[in-house]
Order: sequence, then C-alpha cells, then structure tokens
Amino acid sequence: MAHPPTKPPVAMDDIRSARARIEDKIRVTPVMTSATLDALLHARVFLKCENFQRAGVFKTRGAFNAVFSLSDSEAVRGVVTSSSGNHAAAISLAARTRGIRAYIAMPKIALQSKVAAVRRYGGEIVWVAGRGEIPTSDEFEAAVARIQIETNATTVHPYNDRRTIAGQGTCALEFLEECPDLDFMLAPVGGGGLLSGTAVAAKALNSDIKVIGCEPAMADDAHRSLRAGRIIPQTMPRTIADGLRTSLGDLTFALISTGVDDIVTVTEDGIVAAMRLAWDILKIVIEPSSAVALAALLERRVPAEGKKVGIIVSGGNVDLDNLPWNKK
Amino acid sequence: MAHPPTKPPVAMDDIRSARARIEDKIRVTPVMTSATLDALLHARVFLKCENFQRAGVFKTRGAFNAVFSLSDSEAVRGVVTSSSGNHAAAISLAARTRGIRAYIAMPKIALQSKVAAVRRYGGEIVWVAGRGEIPTSDEFEAAVARIQIETNATTVHPYNDRRTIAGQGTCALEFLEECPDLDFMLAPVGGGGLLSGTAVAAKALNSDIKVIGCEPAMADDAHRSLRAGRIIPQTMPRTIADGLRTSLGDLTFALISTGVDDIVTVTEDGIVAAMRLAWDILKIVIEPSSAVALAALLERRVPAEGKKVGIIVSGGNVDLDNLPWNKK
Repeated sequence: MAHPPTKPPVAMDDIRSARARIEDKIRVTPVMTSATLDALLHARVFLKCENFQRAGVFKTRGAFNAVFSLSDSEAVRGVVTSSSGNHAAAISLAARTRGIRAYIAMPKIALQSKVAAVRRYGGEIVWVAGRGEIPTSDEFEAAVARIQIETNATTVHPYNDRRTIAGQGTCALEFLEECPDLDFMLAPVGGGGLLSGTAVAAKALNSDIKVIGCEPAMADDAHRSLRAGRIIPQTMPRTIADGLRTSLGDLTFALISTGVDDIVTVTEDGIVAAMRLAWDILKIVIEPSSAVALAALLERRVPAEGKKVGIIVSGGNVDLDNLPWNKK
Repeated sequence: MAHPPTKPPVAMDDIRSARARIEDKIRVTPVMTSATLDALLHARVFLKCENFQRAGVFKTRGAFNAVFSLSDSEAVRGVVTSSSGNHAAAISLAARTRGIRAYIAMPKIALQSKVAAVRRYGGEIVWVAGRGEIPTSDEFEAAVARIQIETNATTVHPYNDRRTIAGQGTCALEFLEECPDLDFMLAPVGGGGLLSGTAVAAKALNSDIKVIGCEPAMADDAHRSLRAGRIIPQTMPRTIADGLRTSLGDLTFALISTGVDDIVTVTEDGIVAAMRLAWDILKIVIEPSSAVALAALLERRVPAEGKKVGIIVSGGNVDLDNLPWNKK
C-alpha cells in the first residue's frame, strides 16, 4: 500500500524565502571559469566561489537565514550551537549582525584560526571537555542542551535544520540564475546541509540537471548511507577535508535520498592535487573540503566530458602555516 | 625660455584603442572588497584583481595590445622579447592567440614555473648565457637583437614600449569605469609599464585622483629617480618582489614624472605580511609584487584614512612550494 506523499522538510519556497531574508546581508559570490581548467578536463567548468562569501564559507547563508528567522522575542535570548569550524564563525557573524548573543560550544582542540574567527565575530565560546581527547557528538549535544536550558537561547544545528538547509540552498539558486543550463552540479557532502539545499534548488530550477555529492573515500558515510537506504554514521574519519567528517542527519538524509543523483568518492591525494590546482591555475584560496568536488572531476568520477559542470567551491578557510604540500 | 609642449608618448586615445583591440581576448577582471580589510585600514579599499587575468597577470593586456597591433606582414615574422617572468608567458599566449611565433630570451636560472608557463603557451625559448651567474641587461639586449636580425621578428619590450604601456592602461580604465570616484589609485612599480599606463588613464578619467606608485624599499630606483629628476638604474636588488627588480625606461620615466603624485616604499616584512593578509582574508592568491601596494596601506605610507582607495593587484603567479612564510 502506497504511503501518502509527504511534504519534503525543505522546499523551493523555503529557499526563495531565505534568499529574500538574507540577500542584503550576504555576498552574491562570483562564478569563475578557466580555459586552462576546461582544456584539462575536456568540459566547461563553472565554479561558484563561496570561499569569497562572508566569513569565507557558504555556511554564512544558513547561519543568517536561521538567525534572521527568529522572532524578536526569540532573538533576544540569543542562539546556541556546537561547531569546531566554519559554522561557529558564521553563526557568530550572523548573531552580531542581528545584535544578539551567540553561544558556541567548541572543543579545546579546535584550531586556533577557528577560535580566532569566532572571537573576531563576537561569539561566546563555551569549552567542551570530553572523556576522550575529542568530545563525542553526544558530549557536544549535552553541552548545547545545558546552555540552551540556562539561557533559553535557540539552537541552530550546523546542517540538520530546516533554516540552515534553506539558507545553503540560496547558493545553488544564485548559481543557476547565472548559469541556467548546467548539466551537472557538484557539491561536497559532510553533514549534508549544502548538498540538501543544492538538490532542492537545482531540481526545482532545472529538472534535467544531475546533482552529484562529492565525498572523501576516507569519510564515505553519505555514499554508504545512500546505498544502504539508512544513515550509516561516520566513525573517526581522518580525511584532510576536515569540514566533511560529520555524518548525515535525518533531514539531510531524506533530502539527499530524494534529490541527489549520485555520490562519488575521491582519494586524499586527489583532494590535495585539486586544492593545489585551484590555487595554481585559478588563483583562489580554497580549503580541502572545497577541493573534493574538483577532485571528482580530476579523478574522472563524473561523466563530465563535453558537458557543462557547476562546482560549488564551499569555502576558503585554511591554515597557511600548515599547507598539505609543505608537509614532509 | 619655455619648451613647446610635447605630445606624451602614450595618451588616453592610445589606451582606448588598446581596449578596443584586446577586449574580446582578455578578461575584465573583478573588483573585490572586504569589510574586514576596510575595518583594519580605516578606509574603503577596492582591489582590481589582475591575478585573475589570463596568464595570471596584468601583463597579458600589454602583450595582447602589442601583438595585435602588428600588421599581417609584421606578424608573420613573429615577436621577440626577453623576460624571465610574467611578460614571457603573456607574450607567448598573445602570439599563440594570433597564430604567430614568439621567441623568448630567458636566463638559464629562470624559475621552473615560469619556463613551464612559456612552454604551455607555445613560446620558443632561447637560453641566454651571461658571463656572470645572471646575464646582464646588456647581454639580454644583445640576445634579443641577434634573434631579431635572424628572424626579422618584432621586438616587444616588457615595459618601455608604447604598445605595452597603452595595454597596461586598460586596467585602470576598466577600474575607474566600475569605481569612478576613487580618491587614490595604487599600483606597484618595477619597470613602470603598469604605473605609466595607470597614470595616463586615471588622470584622464578623474583629474582629482592621486596616483601612487608603490615600491620595495630594497628596489627603490623609481622613488630615487623621481626625486632626482633622472633615471637612476637599479643594481642587483634582492627584494622578494621579483617582478619589481627592473629599472625605469625613458618612456615610463617620462610618463611617471608627469602623471604620478608620489612613489612610496615598503619593507620586505610588510610585503610578506600584506601577501599573507590577502590570502587569509580575501582568499586570493597574489604574488609578492602584487602585495606591495597593499603593504603601502598596512604600513601607513598613504594618507588613506576615510578615503576610497583603489589597488591594482598585479598578478598571482607564485611558487606554492616556496612560500615566504614557510621559509625558516
């Protein structure tokens, strides 16, 4: 017996509303091309450069959408989230822009550059100590719950949150308005917020487009989850793509299952090579997580030959003292 | 007794003609801004990103203008130049685009990345051996003259050439069309091709604008030449800004003397700090020579506070294996 059709957790209307809510606060990022790259890949490649987004990452979109979705009475109590990376900085920036408090649960081992970004944007860091070296996601959730109870702040999940996903979808919306006839759209997948929003927007605007998630082989939980038809969590991945170590949530799993055509995986060497290629040829600073989609083209994991391929370059926050090609 | 007014070697008409000649062959580069940078500098800063120009450098403009200025009968004999750097690649690309030969006199010690760029664009390298480790400019000139006699190719000087200067001026023309009311325009100065073209265009389009040349203190020949009222050649400068080690020519000296308001100098540490800041905050790969103008703001060598400041970011060709902040 067929189930009645269920409303998807995020639809195109939510993405359009998000865009109206955030468009005067975020940056419309440029789309770049390179004749050298096209010749190398035998394809026409378009890169949507979210490394130029405010705070250096696409997550600014979802963070602003979530923070500016709050009613005034909610907003006055602030927002809380846990993140050791880009979402922390993005939420801090969005909260400061609205003039409210942001509580950020971070592990003691967070990179100094990420801590500095949160502080620069005025986020209030709450250190989370775990029993192990790295706090578990349960320990983070407990910390967020504790802060939430103490402050009555609103929790904004980094990816498994309708407001976050709708905000991330504004990137593909902009991208397809500028380049409507792409054959493929590639985005990296970690927790799946970006890929979910991308799939919703891309399929709504261009029913022929193929949406491909790109993932490190060393953190291939989304690939395995899609094959298995259920969420398979990622355990302790060591990939250089530090933004992609998280597992899918129920909302992102549902949206990706419906809207994504395939998830392909790439090697660690491929990620480093793609990152370096972008720096060398395109003259843009991109982080390893962003290089994963370009790596999928370089490693011929997508049948892109002769096609128009859009890549969402997700962010550019790297530690310049610790570049992968300078390691011995 | 007053001399009669002499026609300047390059005028605004030449720059407009250059633009018409090259506009379908080069890239209109983006102008970038950063709220973080503005807050740091207490100014509104606009960066014209020639690191995104074809071949990764503004010199593509002058090279295309020179190569496409040739008559068909001249063009068929090819072009010749000497350069160990960006001009070599730019001329090779322009010649290939026109379908003619480019002879490039290079020293054996040229960086591998520069040699590879010339080869990628089909330039024919003629190695120049000097009596010392690095061939002198006389030895280069002799090599170019020899090739010129053998091939009847047209010589295109990297900076002291009307066609080159007019081409470089198209950058400021684009820049001021997008940002007409800048108070300052800053450009690096080596041989002076970019700064000369910038001064001609900027003063023609906005008579109030201040044009400032920016130079490493370790290669301050333009600064000293302007003060002295005659060309003082640079001898063996060791600055990290490898594109700015050359001396002015008679044409660039004349144009800079007339059109440039000041030349300021910066430290080597300032250049590295500015380069790193651009990578970190703006997420763009820029070369040390490009960082000199940003360094002038960071080191407060320009009274920019509260003003609108345009910076020409000249190029992005760096050796990623050899970054200045990774050196011990």
